[in-house]
Amino acid sequence: MLVVKIGGGSGIAIEPTVADLAGLREKGRRLLLVHGASGETNALAERLGKPPRFVTSVSGIESRYTDRETLEIFEMAYCGKGNKAIVEAFQKRGVNAVGLSGLDGRIFEGKRKEAITILEGGKRKVLRGDYTGKVERVNTALLTLLLDHGFLPVVCPPAVSYEGEAVNVDGDTAAAMLAAAFQAEAFVMLSNVPGLLRDVQDPASLVARIPAKTIEEYLPVAQGRMKRKLMAAQIALAAGVRRVVLASANVEHPVTAALAGQGTVIE
Amino acid sequence: MLVVKIGGGSGIAIEPTVADLAGLREKGRRLLLVHGASGETNALAERLGKPPRFVTSVSGIESRYTDRETLEIFEMAYCGKGNKAIVEAFQKRGVNAVGLSGLDGRIFEGKRKEAITILEGGKRKVLRGDYTGKVERVNTALLTLLLDHGFLPVVCPPAVSYEGEAVNVDGDTAAAMLAAAFQAEAFVMLSNVPGLLRDVQDPASLVARIPAKTIEEYLPVAQGRMKRKLMAAQIALAAGVRRVVLASANVEHPVTAALAGQGTVIE
Repeated sequence: MLVVKIGGGSGIAIEPTVADLAGLREKGRRLLLVHGASGETNALAERLGKPPRFVTSVSGIESRYTDRETLEIFEMAYCGKGNKAIVEAFQKRGVNAVGLSGLDGRIFEGKRKEAITILEGGKRKVLRGDYTGKVERVNTALLTLLLDHGFLPVVCPPAVSYEGEAVNVDGDTAAAMLAAAFQAEAFVMLSNVPGLLRDVQDPASLVARIPAKTIEEYLPVAQGRMKRKLMAAQIALAAGVRRVVLASANVEHPVTAALAGQGTVIE
Repeated sequence: MLVVKIGGGSGIAIEPTVADLAGLREKGRRLLLVHGASGETNALAERLGKPPRFVTSVSGIESRYTDRETLEIFEMAYCGKGNKAIVEAFQKRGVNAVGLSGLDGRIFEGKRKEAITILEGGKRKVLRGDYTGKVERVNTALLTLLLDHGFLPVVCPPAVSYEGEAVNVDGDTAAAMLAAAFQAEAFVMLSNVPGLLRDVQDPASLVARIPAKTIEEYLPVAQGRMKRKLMAAQIALAAGVRRVVLASANVEHPVTAALAGQGTVIE
């Protein structure tokens, strides 16, 4: 089993990944794709006069503050435009894809964090009405059923809370949980950078190999989103996934290249 | 098998239908739900500065002109906000729903009509770049799989063209094709009116019963959307569905009421 996550930041092309996965699938590879749509969510939120609000929790984690309206914008970008564009790209290639969110079949289940404590101007502040959460459980029944019957699942947040509410969750973490639940032999995370860079301005500063047990040492090197990706890699590796690769989506055959060792390989 | 279609016009509440279907399902009823989101699509299109453009073909059928941007807005409203709101409402009630579009698993397949000939100011005009089409085939494999494994499918347009493109299709017709494909014993179409009215201003003018073979006579009575619904009823009945009911979504237990004979019953 191969789990691929493609980021949804602006400047990430989906076509090379779709083409590559279609080919891998033809060779009999069992796989599923998780995707983001953060760039589209931000753009849509701006156009709708509801600009994204990023908050930093007291534990130092940045997240999107998600009130009900933001959740709906999130769903429109992720489950509407983003998910269906990928499903359509697969269908054009004759691959019978099925687009799903974590709500559908309760694929991603977790706790809603209705209130978050943030730091704003050095002061602690409690924000309520938040629809964010953390994936705690992956229900593989629906995905296994689809895979066993020849469908290609294309999955994205939101997740579902234990009470059945939609909750915004981090896509990299959700994908890592999925890779863990399926005991994937590889988990590939594609984005608009070639992997972990010691200097984000310099592609030549790529960290090519990280032994799984030293991953902690690299956390301070990672900036922004890359820190989340390393933490997601930790989750997958700790659960028994043998290899995690962080690589670029914007090359030819991005998945095949990542599996061949291009990018940052953690194992 | 029971197929229910709930319209997506403004002023149509989903909660009574969701609650009713959750109850019917508990009693062991095999069912699936198709929904629209036209009101949400129009509102979103307006907010994004891309107001809907309705065109009338030379054969007199009104449709939404769907260029690529409109298609994306359509997907955001249907597959994003609309579909996930219904799936969430079911999950809150402990029903394991799975939201899908006609693209997913190629549920609704048909021909894309890339160009349409319209009448504008009395003149014929050809519009190109249109992503609309007509459902010609329903692929039941995915839905049967889900139903057999205890999931409740919640389905909406778009459909998929034979070339794999997303195409905007009429939801009532798609639902009728689905009811036909499953040889449903009943097909219930819920909207914001109590059924076919002889006078749209007067709920007391409801046509309570229409023998299937006389449906043609009622087409001139139907206004706007209701004409499409009668035509959808014709499709289902011609294919062997025994009973079609047009009824209101905005009552308690709308599906149970419709099955008990409230609304316009065509059989």
